[in-house]
Amino acid sequence: MKKGTVFVLSGPAGSGKSTVRERLMSKGLNFHYSISDTTRKPRAGERDGVDYGFVTREKFEEGIKNGAYYEHAYYAGEYYGTPVSQLLPYIESGVNVILEIEVDGAMQVREKDRDAVLVMLLPPSYSELEARLRGRGTESEDKIQKRLSRARDEVLLYPKYDYFLLNESGRIDECVRQLEVIAEAQTYRTKNTPDFPEEFFKI
Amino acid sequence: MKKGTVFVLSGPAGSGKSTVRERLMSKGLNFHYSISDTTRKPRAGERDGVDYGFVTREKFEEGIKNGAYYEHAYYAGEYYGTPVSQLLPYIESGVNVILEIEVDGAMQVREKDRDAVLVMLLPPSYSELEARLRGRGTESEDKIQKRLSRARDEVLLYPKYDYFLLNESGRIDECVRQLEVIAEAQTYRTKNTPDFPEEFFKI
Repeated sequence: MKKGTVFVLSGPAGSGKSTVRERLMSKGLNFHYSISDTTRKPRAGERDGVDYGFVTREKFEEGIKNGAYYEHAYYAGEYYGTPVSQLLPYIESGVNVILEIEVDGAMQVREKDRDAVLVMLLPPSYSELEARLRGRGTESEDKIQKRLSRARDEVLLYPKYDYFLLNESGRIDECVRQLEVIAEAQTYRTKNTPDFPEEFFKI
Repeated sequence: MKKGTVFVLSGPAGSGKSTVRERLMSKGLNFHYSISDTTRKPRAGERDGVDYGFVTREKFEEGIKNGAYYEHAYYAGEYYGTPVSQLLPYIESGVNVILEIEVDGAMQVREKDRDAVLVMLLPPSYSELEARLRGRGTESEDKIQKRLSRARDEVLLYPKYDYFLLNESGRIDECVRQLEVIAEAQTYRTKNTPDFPEEFFKI
């Protein structure tokens, strides 16, 4: 039985990772999108069980104790985590799982599953990232500075990732195509089909 | 400067690796085909410097001593090897190099360059391989048995390879496409562009 592969998609705010992930998912490929749990309040338009599993702090901490989270991180006063139930059953039944998570969580996934594929999505340059964050026009200067400082830290973890993709302005479909290429290449990995030689000689 | 990647294509006689490699090369992608040296005599139609570099045993053994071969193997009484000059200058200048070599040589490449990409090309089954070898109708039963025994040993080294491709009858173009997908995915590897973060912050 061929197992699924865990794909981690990380990238700073402004890299466009949600859009890339949504377009990939809309293609009906062999992917399950892992919905994270969080203790933060839903924003306008966010739905429980679709965007996140919105849970109480008490429930999240209980989950950490019980091993219910494959990875989790604490960020800006709130918990975020991948429920084991969003990942293992899919992988076991041959479905790929895509996680859209931060670098802390990505490093936990790497430790648990050395066959996981870590992809960092980046804008072409830091100045472009800054322009995108300012272009939103919805955030205070203080918040923009915090995001930029965080982005700087994230990009420095670049060597810990397997692949990187540049999300250039106006070329998001190309970015999605490149992610598909990375995913297709995984299907030809010998380690994903360890039983092949046995089958080869049987027929 | 982005370095090129070493791609090793191995596969038993009858797997179709020469055809796959020739079709890949005909596409004008960023690949140099590494021409091996050998001490065996040229077969009808084979040209020196195109199919192989045909050299004397004395010259080959001198080359081994001088470190002129990136990898070499001794098979059926003859030497085969990849001259360093067929590989390093290309890799250094950002061109990918494809080596069509046997498993012994592939393992030497793996030891020297852990970023090399090892691809094993296989027919869909052992019985199909046998049919292809017999279908040639040009070889003695003894020679066919030797090739089959060797193929068996090669397929057992499957887990040492990074990727495998099935060359199903009549679908060689699909096989070439899959090899291109593997090659394209390498271009998004962070380890192939280690200087990216530096450039990212510069602009």
